[in-house]
Amino acid sequence: MSDAPALLAEAARLAEAAFAHWLPPESEAPARLHRAMRYSMLAGGKRLRPALVLACCRAAGGSDAACAPALVAVECFHTYTLIHDDLPAMDDDDLRRGRPTCHKAFDEATAILAGDALQALAFEAAAALGAEAVRVLARAGGSRGVVGGQQDDLDAEGRTVDGSAEDRALLERIHRGKTAALITASCELGAIAAGATASQRALLAAYGESIGLAFQVADDVLDATASAAVLGKTPGKDAAQGKLTYVSVYGLEAARCEARALLDRALMSTAQLGARGEVLAALARFVVERDR
Amino acid sequence: MSDAPALLAEAARLAEAAFAHWLPPESEAPARLHRAMRYSMLAGGKRLRPALVLACCRAAGGSDAACAPALVAVECFHTYTLIHDDLPAMDDDDLRRGRPTCHKAFDEATAILAGDALQALAFEAAAALGAEAVRVLARAGGSRGVVGGQQDDLDAEGRTVDGSAEDRALLERIHRGKTAALITASCELGAIAAGATASQRALLAAYGESIGLAFQVADDVLDATASAAVLGKTPGKDAAQGKLTYVSVYGLEAARCEARALLDRALMSTAQLGARGEVLAALARFVVERDR
Repeated sequence: MSDAPALLAEAARLAEAAFAHWLPPESEAPARLHRAMRYSMLAGGKRLRPALVLACCRAAGGSDAACAPALVAVECFHTYTLIHDDLPAMDDDDLRRGRPTCHKAFDEATAILAGDALQALAFEAAAALGAEAVRVLARAGGSRGVVGGQQDDLDAEGRTVDGSAEDRALLERIHRGKTAALITASCELGAIAAGATASQRALLAAYGESIGLAFQVADDVLDATASAAVLGKTPGKDAAQGKLTYVSVYGLEAARCEARALLDRALMSTAQLGARGEVLAALARFVVERDR
Repeated sequence: MSDAPALLAEAARLAEAAFAHWLPPESEAPARLHRAMRYSMLAGGKRLRPALVLACCRAAGGSDAACAPALVAVECFHTYTLIHDDLPAMDDDDLRRGRPTCHKAFDEATAILAGDALQALAFEAAAALGAEAVRVLARAGGSRGVVGGQQDDLDAEGRTVDGSAEDRALLERIHRGKTAALITASCELGAIAAGATASQRALLAAYGESIGLAFQVADDVLDATASAAVLGKTPGKDAAQGKLTYVSVYGLEAARCEARALLDRALMSTAQLGARGEVLAALARFVVERDR
């Protein structure tokens, strides 16, 4: 199968089956917290990170069952970051995937706690794959990865963007931290779940880094060009908030070229995997060419 | 050594030496985030959880070096929960350990992110002890532990407390979740670091649960009776916020009796450890008899 939408749908099905095992039921106290966790986890979304886990696990010769805890780990982690990023003190978003954000549907305190609990659950699930999986997720998700990227993003707000070397260095840190770190970790967790060799893991990590950066460049392009109806969240917010994005630093056309160059780099990695790399190539194209 | 203050000082020294290895330097970007993490981690505090790790590791025959990552894991985790609990949307505290809280010294977004990054760092450190240590920390720290207890605590705010069975059940959940869960996990991590037998670990976990509950009862008593100068944080906030505490449900004298009963239960566990249990007994007394 080298069809990205089919893989995404399959990963979503497997991931949601695994969530049923890992997420506490709504009836369990504290019910408000568990409702909020499930509200955000079951809000749909592309399930790109689980798809990467699944495809990388298969590419390294692992079974689908082997990577189930990794599907949970990456999506819990990703969802926690979305809940916290949407908070009033952060990006202050009311809409996510076409529905009220967690703090709008519940309240701010519950949203903070739901995010916190999902982070803990992500690590509990990662621990089912062993300590190395926990280390990969923790490094990608900490102050040198996802959280650092979000801080850089906030610090850059209101900055006068003139394409200086400083702008470009900060943009690179934001893109690596906010998005590429967790996407790379998703690929590595798939490899770890499969018991991959060191060279397989390195190849899949390199692939993940290319498409992680491509994903964020594509996101910057979409924010600048798509409508709310298509996007399912408020578009044009980056420009309104004076955010540092690939588009604001390099312009729209350069952003499109960069996404294409990163895609080519990812395809060079997948070519080394032969037939097993085909679905990864399709996913890479999907990331760059998606319209939401 | 069966002197609790000396053990606390020793644990603080060992923990702070380990932080130097694990915490990113202030000079590393994003500097604001790393400054906030260090500000809260190096704010002093009792270092009770590292002391429990150290004492339990020694009681199970482990070396001090073996438990260094666990000292970092429990204190990073504890500090993250304090930073988030202090946020305006949660307990809205301006003062912690006699200094401005993290969101007052920095800003709300940075405080949320510093807490998030410290949680990730806690799991990275726990992973150095293996996957079982991560599982213990994640279960204690998730929606069925620390985070659940904080949600219960917030949900109970403004409740009309009349000592009903429902009040008592909710209070028990709050005390187990908010405080006892992480204190129990600290004792277990010390045991795991030492390579303890299952029966040693169970004994140390039972000890941890007793003093964890005792700690929170003592905290409720202190909030109702101590002054800000002694406490280093705003006292009387529980009553002002209509919080469900041992004192509000059972009254001050009953709270003092309960703390004593829990102490006796902890001392029964330590008695089974012979001479190795002496310092744990001293720590248990310290927890109940402290004045801040």
